[in-house]
Amino acid sequence: MTSKGIDIERKLVRKLWEAGYAAIRVPASGAGSSEYPKPDIICGNGKRYMAFEVKKTKKDILYINKYDIKSLLMFSEIFGAEPYLAIKFSKDKFIYFLKINDLFTTKSENYKITYEQAIQKGLTFNMLINNSIKLEFNW
Amino acid sequence: MTSKGIDIERKLVRKLWEAGYAAIRVPASGAGSSEYPKPDIICGNGKRYMAFEVKKTKKDILYINKYDIKSLLMFSEIFGAEPYLAIKFSKDKFIYFLKINDLFTTKSENYKITYEQAIQKGLTFNMLINNSIKLEFNW
Repeated sequence: MTSKGIDIERKLVRKLWEAGYAAIRVPASGAGSSEYPKPDIICGNGKRYMAFEVKKTKKDILYINKYDIKSLLMFSEIFGAEPYLAIKFSKDKFIYFLKINDLFTTKSENYKITYEQAIQKGLTFNMLINNSIKLEFNW
Repeated sequence: MTSKGIDIERKLVRKLWEAGYAAIRVPASGAGSSEYPKPDIICGNGKRYMAFEVKKTKKDILYINKYDIKSLLMFSEIFGAEPYLAIKFSKDKFIYFLKINDLFTTKSENYKITYEQAIQKGLTFNMLINNSIKLEFNW
C-alpha cells in the first residue's frame, strides 16, 4: 500500500545536494517536534526553497491524507518554500513532483492521483530543477 | 560541560513559531543523514532564513568544535540562510545568538567564547527577530 518512503527520501536528498541544493530530511518522529506542521524534506540554494511531502506506492493510484497536505501547505506558506508532493510508483523508476493544485480530491476531502495523472501533470526531477533556471531568466 | 541542548532547541523552535517563522529541529541522528552538513535548527518566514547550531553549558566559557561551525557555515552558504550559534549559559535565562565572526579561535583552530563576550557580542532573541524588520525598511 502507501508508506513513508525513507529510501526515496534519502535518494531525493542526495539528488538535491548533487543539483546544488542544501537539503535536509525531517524525521516525522522526535519528541516535541510533532506539534508544528512540517514536510518530509526541505531544501534551498540561496534563490529557491522547496518543501516536499514524499510518498511511495505499489499501486496505480495514491491516496493522500488531507492532513499531510495541509501540513505541507501551512509549513511552506510560512517558511517561504514551494510545496511539492513527491511520488514514487514502484513500476516506474522516476519520482514525479506534483503541485497540490494538480491533485484530485476524494469525496472525503482527501487527495488522490493515479499513475497516469502523475505522469501527465507531474515534473521529473530534471524538470523540477531546471525550473529554477527559467525563473532566473524571467527576472 | 558542553552538550547538545535538546530542551533549548525545543524552546527556540517554539519561540520562532511564535515570532512568525516556520522552524524545524534537525535531529543529528538518522541513518543516511549524517553524510551532509546540517544545522540543529532551520527557520524561515518567506523573507528571511536562519540556521542555528545550538549549545548549552554550565561553565562560563564555551568551546565549539571547528567541524560543528564548518558544517553550519557550509549548510547556510548553500541553503541560503544566516548562520548563528545559539548559546545558553546555565546561569543566564537568555539564549545569546552569535555570528561566527564574533567567536574567538583557539590554538587548535577550534572556537571559544566566554559568557562576558557572549553578552557583549551576542543578540538576544528579540534583537535577532527585530533585525528582520530593520532589513525590510532598508530595502
